[in-house]
Order: sequence, then C-alpha cells, then structure tokens
Amino acid sequence: EQAGLFSSQYGTQYGSTDKSCSMHDHQTNSNHIKQNCPTPTADHWVRADQEEEAIRRKLKYFFMSPCDKYHAKGRKPYKLILQLLKIVIVTVQLAFFGISNQVAVTFKEENTMTFKHLFLKDYNQSSDDSLAVYTQQDVYDHMFYAVEKYLTIPETTVGRYAYVYDIGVNGSALSLCQQYYKKGQIDPANDTFNIDPHIVTDCIGVNPLSVPDTQLTSSYKNFTLKFHKLINVTIQFQLKAINIQTIINNEIPDCYTFHITIVMDNKAHSGKVKIWLENQATIRECKDPSVSGHAESYTRVTFDVVVSLVCLLSLLLCGRSLLRGIMLQQEFVQYFKETLDRKVCWADRLEFINGWFILLIISDIFTITGSIIKMGIESKTMSSYDICAILLGTSTLLVWVGVIRYLTFFQKYNILIITLRAALPNVIRFCCCVAVIYLGFCFCGWIVLGPYHVKVK
Amino acid sequence: EQAGLFSSQYGTQYGSTDKSCSMHDHQTNSNHIKQNCPTPTADHWVRADQEEEAIRRKLKYFFMSPCDKYHAKGRKPYKLILQLLKIVIVTVQLAFFGISNQVAVTFKEENTMTFKHLFLKDYNQSSDDSLAVYTQQDVYDHMFYAVEKYLTIPETTVGRYAYVYDIGVNGSALSLCQQYYKKGQIDPANDTFNIDPHIVTDCIGVNPLSVPDTQLTSSYKNFTLKFHKLINVTIQFQLKAINIQTIINNEIPDCYTFHITIVMDNKAHSGKVKIWLENQATIRECKDPSVSGHAESYTRVTFDVVVSLVCLLSLLLCGRSLLRGIMLQQEFVQYFKETLDRKVCWADRLEFINGWFILLIISDIFTITGSIIKMGIESKTMSSYDICAILLGTSTLLVWVGVIRYLTFFQKYNILIITLRAALPNVIRFCCCVAVIYLGFCFCGWIVLGPYHVKVK
Amino acid sequence: EQAGLFSSQYGTQYGSTDKSCSMHDHQTNSNHIKQNCPTPTADHWVRADQEEEAIRRKLKYFFMSPCDKYHAKGRKPYKLILQLLKIVIVTVQLAFFGISNQVAVTFKEENTMTFKHLFLKDYNQSSDDSLAVYTQQDVYDHMFYAVEKYLTIPETTVGRYAYVYDIGVNGSALSLCQQYYKKGQIDPANDTFNIDPHIVTDCIGVNPLSVPDTQLTSSYKNFTLKFHKLINVTIQFQLKAINIQTIINNEIPDCYTFHITIVMDNKAHSGKVKIWLENQATIRECKDPSVSGHAESYTRVTFDVVVSLVCLLSLLLCGRSLLRGIMLQQEFVQYFKETLDRKVCWADRLEFINGWFILLIISDIFTITGSIIKMGIESKTMSSYDICAILLGTSTLLVWVGVIRYLTFFQKYNILIITLRAALPNVIRFCCCVAVIYLGFCFCGWIVLGPYHVKVK
Amino acid sequence: EQAGLFSSQYGTQYGSTDKSCSMHDHQTNSNHIKQNCPTPTADHWVRADQEEEAIRRKLKYFFMSPCDKYHAKGRKPYKLILQLLKIVIVTVQLAFFGISNQVAVTFKEENTMTFKHLFLKDYNQSSDDSLAVYTQQDVYDHMFYAVEKYLTIPETTVGRYAYVYDIGVNGSALSLCQQYYKKGQIDPANDTFNIDPHIVTDCIGVNPLSVPDTQLTSSYKNFTLKFHKLINVTIQFQLKAINIQTIINNEIPDCYTFHITIVMDNKAHSGKVKIWLENQATIRECKDPSVSGHAESYTRVTFDVVVSLVCLLSLLLCGRSLLRGIMLQQEFVQYFKETLDRKVCWADRLEFINGWFILLIISDIFTITGSIIKMGIESKTMSSYDICAILLGTSTLLVWVGVIRYLTFFQKYNILIITLRAALPNVIRFCCCVAVIYLGFCFCGWIVLGPYHVKVK
Repeated sequence: EQAGLFSSQYGTQYGSTDKSCSMHDHQTNSNHIKQNCPTPTADHWVRADQEEEAIRRKLKYFFMSPCDKYHAKGRKPYKLILQLLKIVIVTVQLAFFGISNQVAVTFKEENTMTFKHLFLKDYNQSSDDSLAVYTQQDVYDHMFYAVEKYLTIPETTVGRYAYVYDIGVNGSALSLCQQYYKKGQIDPANDTFNIDPHIVTDCIGVNPLSVPDTQLTSSYKNFTLKFHKLINVTIQFQLKAINIQTIINNEIPDCYTFHITIVMDNKAHSGKVKIWLENQATIRECKDPSVSGHAESYTRVTFDVVVSLVCLLSLLLCGRSLLRGIMLQQEFVQYFKETLDRKVCWADRLEFINGWFILLIISDIFTITGSIIKMGIESKTMSSYDICAILLGTSTLLVWVGVIRYLTFFQKYNILIITLRAALPNVIRFCCCVAVIYLGFCFCGWIVLGPYHVKVK
Repeated sequence: EQAGLFSSQYGTQYGSTDKSCSMHDHQTNSNHIKQNCPTPTADHWVRADQEEEAIRRKLKYFFMSPCDKYHAKGRKPYKLILQLLKIVIVTVQLAFFGISNQVAVTFKEENTMTFKHLFLKDYNQSSDDSLAVYTQQDVYDHMFYAVEKYLTIPETTVGRYAYVYDIGVNGSALSLCQQYYKKGQIDPANDTFNIDPHIVTDCIGVNPLSVPDTQLTSSYKNFTLKFHKLINVTIQFQLKAINIQTIINNEIPDCYTFHITIVMDNKAHSGKVKIWLENQATIRECKDPSVSGHAESYTRVTFDVVVSLVCLLSLLLCGRSLLRGIMLQQEFVQYFKETLDRKVCWADRLEFINGWFILLIISDIFTITGSIIKMGIESKTMSSYDICAILLGTSTLLVWVGVIRYLTFFQKYNILIITLRAALPNVIRFCCCVAVIYLGFCFCGWIVLGPYHVKVK
Repeated sequence: EQAGLFSSQYGTQYGSTDKSCSMHDHQTNSNHIKQNCPTPTADHWVRADQEEEAIRRKLKYFFMSPCDKYHAKGRKPYKLILQLLKIVIVTVQLAFFGISNQVAVTFKEENTMTFKHLFLKDYNQSSDDSLAVYTQQDVYDHMFYAVEKYLTIPETTVGRYAYVYDIGVNGSALSLCQQYYKKGQIDPANDTFNIDPHIVTDCIGVNPLSVPDTQLTSSYKNFTLKFHKLINVTIQFQLKAINIQTIINNEIPDCYTFHITIVMDNKAHSGKVKIWLENQATIRECKDPSVSGHAESYTRVTFDVVVSLVCLLSLLLCGRSLLRGIMLQQEFVQYFKETLDRKVCWADRLEFINGWFILLIISDIFTITGSIIKMGIESKTMSSYDICAILLGTSTLLVWVGVIRYLTFFQKYNILIITLRAALPNVIRFCCCVAVIYLGFCFCGWIVLGPYHVKVK
Repeated sequence: EQAGLFSSQYGTQYGSTDKSCSMHDHQTNSNHIKQNCPTPTADHWVRADQEEEAIRRKLKYFFMSPCDKYHAKGRKPYKLILQLLKIVIVTVQLAFFGISNQVAVTFKEENTMTFKHLFLKDYNQSSDDSLAVYTQQDVYDHMFYAVEKYLTIPETTVGRYAYVYDIGVNGSALSLCQQYYKKGQIDPANDTFNIDPHIVTDCIGVNPLSVPDTQLTSSYKNFTLKFHKLINVTIQFQLKAINIQTIINNEIPDCYTFHITIVMDNKAHSGKVKIWLENQATIRECKDPSVSGHAESYTRVTFDVVVSLVCLLSLLLCGRSLLRGIMLQQEFVQYFKETLDRKVCWADRLEFINGWFILLIISDIFTITGSIIKMGIESKTMSSYDICAILLGTSTLLVWVGVIRYLTFFQKYNILIITLRAALPNVIRFCCCVAVIYLGFCFCGWIVLGPYHVKVK
C-alpha cells in the first residue's frame, strides 16, 4: 500500500477517518508521540453536514497539485509555467553576469601576478607563499629592487600603468617605511634585554623621475634599517590602469586603482624575513569613455528589466497563494472552534503555509535586488560585483532547488521525499552527537599537534 | 525457488500457466502495474491442440541457449565458436593497430616538445602552461629568440627538419605578426581612453639564410611592437620531417608537415603576456619511398582481410538469426490473432528480438569499416588514425562486453543480470533527480565562486 | 518496546523480576552465556520486605539521572552545571596555552629554517631531505662554506645571534670533526681490503674573529679529510637568541640556546655524502628581563588558579559520588549475603562504579597538573611546553568526550550507546584477527620489498 | 543454534545422525546440490556395532583440536608449541636477513644515484626520467662531459672506485659507440628518403690517464656523430667498489662490479635525444678479506642451523600427521566398502587431508631452502639475495597466515571462517565476471586513449 500526496491524502482521508489531527500520522512516523490534539466525538460531525461539505471541498481543492487542479476544474497551471520560464531566464541572466564578473576578477588577479613578478626579486610562482630572506644584504636588495622597478615602470611594463601622486609621506608617490620597537637592546650573549614595546614608524617618500622636485627620488638609497629591533618594512604605492578587455564583451571599460603594499615581515625576530605583496583594487567609472563604433546597446538592461518583472509577477502570485492559505487556515480554525468546539493543533496549522512558496518569494526578492545592482554595474554607477554575485547565485540555486517541488507531483518521488523527511530528524540528531565529539577531538589536536605539523594548521 | 532463463522459463511456463502475457511478471517485478493484455478464456486452448503444440515446440527451440540446443538436437554451436574466434582476432588486430598508432602519435608529441625547447626561451617542461613575461624587453627577447632559433635550425637540431617556403607574407617562410586595436589611446592617469575596437594586423616576413634574397632575413630586428594597444604577437612557420622510426615495425615511413604557431597573448591587457606554442601536424605519403631490403610484407593486409571476412560471416549469421526471430514473431502474432483472437503486447514482441545480436551486428560493422580504413593507412593512401582507432576500439569493447552473454547461459549469473535489469529504472530515476539538484548547485557555484578559485574553473 | 536506561530499568525491574543477576540480560544480548549467578528461591524475598524496600529505594535513587533526581527530590544538578562550566574554562585555558606554545614552537622551527639557509650551501627548501654531494671538492666547499658563514654571523644575519664560547675542542666555539676507521686500506681494483673497524675522531676548533687569540680562526682551511676511510664530518656550535615576539602576547621573552650540528654523512661509502643540519633548542629564563611599560599582569595566573580550583571541586564531588557508589555496593552485597545468602556477581558489582566519574577524575587530575606546569612556564621557572600540551590537550579531549554522557540522559541516544556497547567485543575480536594477518603481511612485505621501493620504507 | 567445529561436530554427529555424507551439509550451505552419496539403510549399522565403535572413536580422536586432545587424553600439544616457536624464530631470521639485504640493495641504489650525478650533465634528481637534449651541441656536450668525468674519477669522487681495464673495444676501458642506419638519406624538403635499415655500430675506445698508452686517451674528442641517421650513442664502462658498510653489522664486506651504460637515444628521430644511465651490479666475494679485530662470529650461522632443524622437525611431524590422515582414510573407506558396501564420496575423503599441514610443509621447505642460501650468502660463497628474500619472506607469510588455524580452535572465529568459506565461490565468480568486462574496457581504453595521455600509459 503506497502513501499518496499530502493534498490528495488529505482530501480522501478527511471524510473517511474523521480525525483531523491524525492526518499527520501517516506522513511522518516519528511524530506519533506528540498526539496532544483531542479526538472529537462522532455526533458533532453528523450535525454540520452542509458546512462540513463546503469546507471539505475547499480544503480538497487547496491541497491539490496543479495537475489535479487542471484535471478537476480545467484551470491552466499559469504559476507552474511562470516558474519554468523563471528557471530559464534567471539562469541566462546569471550566466551573463558570471562572464562579466570573471573578466573583472581575472583582470585584478593577473595584475597582482604581474606586480609580484615586477616588484619582487627572485619571485617564483610555484613557491608563491614562501618567499623569504635571511641576511641583511638580501633585505636591502629586495627593498631597493622594488623601489627601482617602481621608478622604471613607464619604460618597462607591457601593461599601461599610471602613477598616483601625493598619497605618501611628504606628498610623495611611494612610502618606504620601517616599524621598530622604541627601545630594543637585546644581548643574547648575556641573556639580557631592555625592550620598550611601543612601536615607532619611520618613513621616507620616493617620487617618480617624472616629478621635477628630484630631492625625493634618490634619497631612498640612504634608508637604513634598524635590524636589531625591526618589526617590518613596508613599501606602499598606487597604480592606475584601465581594463580594456571588456570591449570584447561589448561593455565599456572600467578604471582601476591598485593599492600595492610590499611587506617584509620580521615580526617573529627568528632570522627569517618573510616577503609578500598585497594588491587591493578599487573599480571606478572612467571619466570620458570614448569607444569608436560602440553603439550603446540597451539589450542587457532590457533583459534585466524583463527578469525583474517576471520575478515581480511570480512574487505577487506566490504571495497571493500564501495569503489564501492563511485565510483558509483562519476559516478552518474558526469552523473547528465554532462547530466542533475544538482547537486545531499547530502542526496542522502549518500545513496551510506552503514552504515552497516561501522559497520562491525569497528567490524572487533576491533576483530583483540582484538585477537592480546588475543594472547599476552595467551603467557604471556601481561596482559591487561580489554582492550581486551572491544575490543572483543564491536565487538561481533556490530556483533550481525548487525543481524538486515539481517532482513531488509524481508519486514515486513523493515517497522518496516523505521518507527523507521522516528520517531527517534522527539523522540530524546523530550528526550533532558525532559533531560534538569530532569538534572536541579537532580542537585538542589542533592545539596540541598544530604547531609541529604544517598540514594540521 | 530460483527463476530460470527467459527461454527455458518460457517453454515450460507456456503450457502450464496459460497466460501468454503474464510471462513477463516473474521476470521483472516492477512491471506488474501495466497489465493491459487481456486474459484468454480457457476453452480457446483446448481446441487448437495440434497447432499449439507445433508453435510451442518452435518457441521452445528458439529461446534455447546454444548448450541446450546441442543437448537437444546435437546442433553444434558454430556461432558461439565464431564469436570466441572473433574475440581473439579482433583483439589481436586492435593491438597491432594500437602499436602503429602509438608510433605516429608519439612522433608528433615528441616533435612538439622539441619545438617548445628549441623556440621558447626559458622553457621549462614542468611549468608548461604558465610561461609568461611581464616586461617589454622580455617580449622582444622571446620574439627575437624564436626567430633566431628558426634561422639556425639546419645547424643546430638533432632531428632533420626542412623549411617550407612561400607560405608567409610576401612569399616569405616565416610570418611575424602583431595584432592591435585601430585606435588605443589609454590614459590611466586621467581615467580617460579613446578606443577603436577594430583590429589591425601588421606582419613582416622572414626568410631563412639559404634564400638568396637576403632582404627579408634581418629586417625583423626592426619590428616594433605597439604595446599600449597590442592584442597579440604571432610567429607562424612550417617545418617538414620524416618519421623513419616506423621502419622498426616494418612499415614505410610517413612524411609530416608541422604547422607551428608561437603566440604571445596580451588580450587581457593585464601586464602579463602569456606565451605558448601550437603545433599541428599533417601526415602525407612520401613521394619516393625507398627502403633497402624492405620486402613488401602483405601479412598485415592479409590479416585485416581475414578479420573482415570473419566479421562478415558473423554479421550474416547474426542477421539471419535476427530475421528468424522476426519471422517467428510474425507467426506467433498471427497465431494469437487467428486462433485466440488476441493481440500480443509489445513487451512480449520485443522478446523475439535478441539484443545481443544487435550488439554483435554493430560490432561487426565497426570492425569491417575500421579494417578497411586500417588497410588504407597501411598502404599509405589514408592517414585518419583517429577515426580508425575509435572504430576498432569500440568494436573490441563491444565484443568483450558480449562475453557477458555467454555468462547468462549459466544460471547463477542470470539471476544477477535479471535483478540488475529490474532495479535499473528506479536507479536511473533517482539519479536524474539528484543530477538536477547537483546541476543547479554546480551552475551556481561555478558562476559565483569560479572566478576566485583556479580549481573550480 | 524500547529498552530504558540502566538506572530506571534497574529500579523497576528489580521489584518485578526478582532476579538480581538477570538485570544484565536485557542490556547486552551477547552475554547470556555466562549466567553463573545462582537464582534465589522466592521465599527469601517475602520475609525481608522492609529492608528490601529501603535498599530498593536507595538503589533507585542512586541510578537516577540528574534530571530525574531534580524531578524526584528537587535537588538541583550542581555537578552537571559544574561540568558544563568546566568544559568552557578548560577549553579557554587550552586555547590560551595553545597560542603561547605555538609562538615558542614557531620560533624554534623558523630559526632552524634560517640556519639551514645560512649554513648549508645550495640549500633548497623544497628538496629539504635530499641534500647530498658526490665529489671531494663539493664536500670541502660545503664544509668551508658553513664555517665561513658561522664566522660572519654578526654582520650578515637579520636575527640577533650571539656566539657561545668555550664549548668545543681546545676551548674553541666551533668544533669541526671527522670520524674515520682506524685502518681503511681499500683496493677495489684487486678486490682486497684491510680494515680496522675502530673509529677514530679527529677534531679541530674554530673561534670567531672577535676572539683575540686568532690562532684558531683560520687554521680550519688546512683541515684535510681522509676520504677513503671517512665515516662522517660534523660541524658543531651553539648560538644564543631571545624570542622577543612574545611581547605581543604580553609575555616576558624567553632566552634560547640553539645546539647546531651539521652532519656530512659518508657512512654508506657509496660515493654519496648526505648533508643535513640538526638544531636542538633549550629554553631558559632570561637573566634580567626589562620590558618598559610592562605591567606585571596577573590575569593569566589568576585564570589558571580558577581553573585549578574548579577542577579540584569537580574532583572532590566526583570522588564523593564514586565513594558513595562503593559504599552502596558494600551494603548491597552485605544485604544479599545476609538476607538472601547469595553472592553478587562481578558484573553487577561493577555497575555501581560509574565509568564517567573515573573519566572526569582523570581529566581533573590532568588539568590540575597541567595548570601548575602552565603557571610555572608563565613565571619562567619551567619550560616543559610539551608535557603541559599533552596534559591539557588530553584533559580537554576527555572533558569533551564526557559530553556523550549527558546525551545518555536522552532516551534515543541511549539506545545507540547500548547497541554500540553490545557490538564492541565482537568488532574488537574481528579486528584482532584481521590485524594479525595484516601484520604478517606487512612484516613480510617490508622485509622483502622494502629495500627496492622508497614508499614502502 | 550455533554450528560447532568440524572435528567435534563430526564426532558427535556421526553417532547421532547416521549419515556419513550429510556431515558436509551443515558446514557449507552452498554445497547441498551435489548430494550424490547414497544413504545407507539402517540395518547395516545395527550389525557392525563393535567395529563401528572402534572406527568412530578413532575418527573422533583424529578430528579433535589439540586442546580437546589434551583434555581427553592428556597429550601435550607439542606440535602446537613447535609452531608457535617457529613463528618467533622464523620472524627473527627474516628480520636479520632483511637488514643485511637492505644494506646490499641500498649500496647499489646509492651508487647508481652517485653515477647519475657524476656522469650526467645537468642531472636533476626530481626530474630523473625526463633528461633530454634537443640540439647537436648539447649531445656532444653531454657525451664529452661523461667521458671527461670518467677520466677524472680517482681525483674527484668521494667513494673509492677502481677502473676495470680491457673490457671495451681494442682492449680499452671505456667504449664510446654510435649506432646508425647503413644508409639514411632523408630529404624532408622533397618528401623523399632512401634508407637501408641495417644497423651499423661504430665504436672507439678510451683509456684512463693512468694507462701508459696515451693514444686512446684523447682521441675521443674527434668522435663525430652522424646525426641524420643516428639511432643512439652509448658509453659503456665498468667500475669496481667495496661495500665496507657491512662492517657495522659485523659482516665481511662484499666486492661489487658496476656495469655502467650511458645511453643517448635518438631511435624516434623526433628531434629529442633522451639520456639515461643504467647500472648493473654484480656481487663477488672479495679475494683477501682482512678485518682487524673481527672475530669470526658463528652466531648467525648457528642460528640459521637451529631454524633449519626446527623446521625439519616441524616438517617431519606434519608429514607424519598427514600420513596418518591418509591411512585413516584408507581404513575408513575400506570399512565402508566392506561393512556397508558403500563408496565414500570425494568431498568426505578430502576431509582427512588437513590443508593446514600442507601449508606448514610448504612453509618448512621454503624456510629450509632459504636458510641454506642464507648461510651461503653469509659465508660469501653465494650472492643470490633476491631468491633468498622471496623464499624466507613467503615462508614467514605462510607461518603467520597459519595463525588463523589456531583461531579456528575458538568457536566464534570458526563461524567466521566457515561463513567466509561458504561465500568465497560466489564472490570469486562475481569477481571473474567483473574482471572480464573491466579487462575489455582497459584494453580498449589503453589502445585508443593510451597514446594521447601520459597517465594512461
């Protein structure tokens, strides 16, 4: 004997079993302990035949699947078709956005790579994160190498970079700084030290050769490091570039400013100075975009508007269905209270609120918000690629997950889902138990073994 | 109680259960819903005893396994022996072809490797796909290095390569080209740009030193790259070589032409110029093959002909069996219609068409086609190694998979296969459901996370 | 029908089944063979009604879970709350210690890395363990390189290292030694040899340039190796350093002495001389710690004292419960002996000793010991980081594992644990059997295949 | 109801069930089809009471486990103790041999590594198998480098190597050879070639500088390679060395001769010349071993003799038990034939032959043979380490696997083993089926995909 759908099961069971609250039993076998709902006496039912029949028919129709509704009343499943349409257009929109986003991200990543090859001496891509030096001479070499390469950028680089002036110390373009402890007399020979742990920062500015005031250009050669109390050396500057690759996708190029920081870290005072380069990009609209033969294409924006409208329609329809469910619930509860003088238990009340509709509503809100941000990005008034990616990605995922709902309209899958729903609480409880033990084990292992093994870190 | 084979089951069950369409029930337990065939009344059977006995005997014999046929009528299983012979010779043929094919593929691969080592500066095999340069000087260096190495090929290479003349621009042997945007004024300092995205290609030709007209030989040194709007630099030329390694396998050498393209890609304008080498080989028959002491060996071709004939025989025998099955089906349907006035349902009709024979026929057709191509390759009139490999490989796979059929003649395996057949639809349906969700998840993850992680790409 | 907890089961079962020893049956189904306990006759029970009722009530209360005790007598579960508090503070303590420990371990590891880069010629981090030389000249080069780098430490290193004098041969700072066989005439040409396997050690001392007696400074250049009978060359010296990174964690810096040994190993006489560097660190309290603006913070020590006190309280409470269990057991055994003239079997006796309490007691002892060591480390009178890490880590793991106990108060998990307990002996027995065979296989494989494959080693 | 052991089951079951052939049923459930043994009529049994009782008692005793025999007749389990002793001493012997073997293998491996570093230019351990050159100059460079390094061995190497003279061409020590096709006119430009595939070998000899006849010393510089038809270049020579590391294990050193071949392979004529070094070692007894203070230790040989004797004793005892089984079987068959006029089926006859004894006999033979070889190796009259390793390793594995037998004396494990024995045929049959399909798939994939992917090769 096979268990039917909620809806159909409800419809048939209602009339036959005369136990409104037991409708839950056959669906989830694990809940049979919480039977707190009162059982009505049979005579109540005999009296209110007319009213009962009306509400029974309403309930039956409410819990029908779209297919059943079509068979029963010939109502075409507009909402179902709308959802299928939404899957297609939301996916297409995500794909378009993904391609645009990839161009922006790749541009930033490849520039970071370029800066590492340009400014870091002996840089080797395969051992990216282990660049370190061990002698004083090497520290000076790497430091001067980076500054020299910065000064020769216009002649050497393949890409076209522009200096950003007046951002460093003394209105210079590049800030070369060292941080050290205020006092740091260390004498390992006698096992004595005298440290003042306040940190002092000592900076000089360097200007490119193009700046007429040449005073700041070559003075960096005299920059002396206080190795015995040095914490770190940082070289900071900014470079500007334009991502003209977007022309291929028929988009207007963005203007980028890269905030580059080269750090030589001696914080551990272990004789090893780690060196790395950080690159933060900010994206801005360019001032005077001029692309010859570029017809302002409104197709993308149009498509985004269409997506937004479809999602708005879906939002309204789902909201209406949800509202109807709540109203029917009110009516049902009212009927039970008046006619049968009984309360309807919460588990049954929740049956009226369709979780799938909530899922669709969340998805719709995400898509609409994401589409608005996307239009902003395309018209170059916004550049928050990340938020837009998360919104559109999540909504697409939700819409695809919503496909499972349509599978519940087929009997075989329904059994699968009901079984899963019944088994889930036990599985979750077991997982929690295992997780706690695992967590304790991990925590202990991380602290005790962590420092000795690179992999555990 | 153990379920027998289709055939034997059919034979015995037929007389005893009097339900032609229920013969399907015991085999696949999942189909018991679709019982649309009518049940005959018992008196029909009593009348047509003679005719029934005849068709029953025919059916029983038809569904017998070769072993049973041998035991029943002493008919020797010629077809079975033929199939076993086919497995052996088809496998041997594939092995022979595989060795020949490997020589051809290896020759191409190793030459590509050689060209990379010869023409790419600082080439390192372990980081094959990440060769890139970051400064203007490095781009020039790599470009000139490749051209210089090309000019000195005759003196330096271990292998014997010949230039191909008159294929580049201005009738030169090597084309050195750059592609750039028509207009590409980029000023990151002011955040302005003026781009005409039409692509202009600018080429010069270079001739080897052996060509008397030395004008084209050294002019490439003056080739200037327009870095600020550069899209890519390409160096294209062709080299000819002869694969004399095949002499070891007693085959006549092939003549190869390698179309080599070195690309320096600045499409992304991210300061990083990726460099790679592409090599496309075309195989031709050599003009005047002369191998001393090479007796034209017809053994290979003879073997291919034998394989083709065996497969043709197998094809004819399987075709005949298939035809007999269809004819018996017609007779059976006719009998049911006339005598019992009943239709035979489709599932039962399909029982008469043996899937194994279709598998063998496809395999035979593939083998015959593959053998013909193989003969063409061996006589140097064809060079489509890939198609031949796919045809022969697939056919061998099918023939080996056909081994399972002989296992069904043993009872124990038969149960295994019947169980698998019954479980398959449910498994496939479940996989579909999981696949849809997985797809949605992948799609979302790829778009959202893709640009940030190399691995997800 | 679901099996209840030990405790509740005991209480109810006791009165109803009248078989003290059968209480074990329903819990572990695998033990029903060892029923060696005698069955009492029924008349004994009728007489001692009063006494029986008293002891039954005591037992019932003893085996109750904290929740049941609260429901029954309103006793608040102080011990339970104490344990939950302990989980939190023990974990916090471990985290604090872990961070301190990591700083110490990292300092040692990074210094070892620095020494390898400084003293080993051609050292490459990625092939750390395969540094080897094959020619006499290379051995000399590596040897002299290390000594020269040692002599120039004060000028070159980024970190601040001090020499340790008067520890080598002849009161020098660095000992350069070679070990060789007393006699080692090997003549492979004639297949003859004359070896005296006694080992002779030949050392010279080297002093840094700062030592006035310059005799020992440059004599090492004349050190000649006897390659034909050489076993190994070792360079030994010590360096002192101060780990001032701990200032960040508001701790007083430690003084380190590194015992560095560079070994060039020719033991195998296979033409390959393996080279490696060993570094052993000893941690000492610095003599005259002076950190400006460092207010002696007693917070950490205070916290450790709090942890110790909480664990002491937990230890006392658990000990009391354990004692009560033993006393009740005595009483129970006494009652059985006197009233029923029966012995109580061992399995039942063990029921009175709660394994969880033993676990908690062990955990408490570990925590207290660990906390005392931790306080010693923080006040720089001890430096046994490893023992402290093991003690605190184990105790935290035990406390977290103790979480399972609280899960046994819920019925569902209890079934899980009872099932596990019943299945465990069989699983262990099976594992033993498999382990023996696996061991034999491994042993054989290791000996036979070991020498040929690097991975099997 | 739990199934007992063979032996005890037999003993009890025999008298009670009166069906000699059904004794098999309860043990392996899968064999109940092959019941071909006739069932005796009951009256036969009544008559031969005396004789039956005697043979029944004999059988009962024969099938008893050692423990049961001890309990029944007080016979101490000498054989069992002997086997346990054997496990220990065989394992110890294997461990001793393993250590000796490892020294020999390591010496060869490390010398090979040394030769690669010495004679191969630009050799890099991490890319061991991909050393290749692509230009004519590089081939010459690598060739001359190897010869030059060979000539300077006495001064440069750390290990002590001796030349082997008069083994190359013209009585030289080193043979430098090239192989090429007799005729090899290749003209890729015209797509023509004229090849005579007979191979010509052209060699010159090189002598070390120590040989007075200096004619052969420097002439190698004029060795010209015929690149257009070159197949390969080989450099062959021999070096002698003595493995004095074995002194540590108190063994007498072995004398080694290394046959070194450097191959530059141009067989593929693909422009890539692969270079590798082969090293074959032969081990000989040294002529005049003289190790000062080395007391000829006979302990090892004594231990080997003890192992051999123990195994011989075990061999005799097991052989006796096996013989007794066969004799009892004869008697049993005779009894059945004469008294009951029945044949005993083969399955029952095989019950008398204990497979464990056969296992032990094989193991004993292996150990004895291995021990004799080991003694030969230790007295330096043999050097077949590999055969000895396989013999001793296999015998140890068998002895350890024999541990399972003793586990069958415990009831619980016995069930495990009986279950395994019953399930094995089905598992094997299923594996065969899968293996055939997998094989076909692999074969096809290897041929079709193999040439294109390095990993599939």
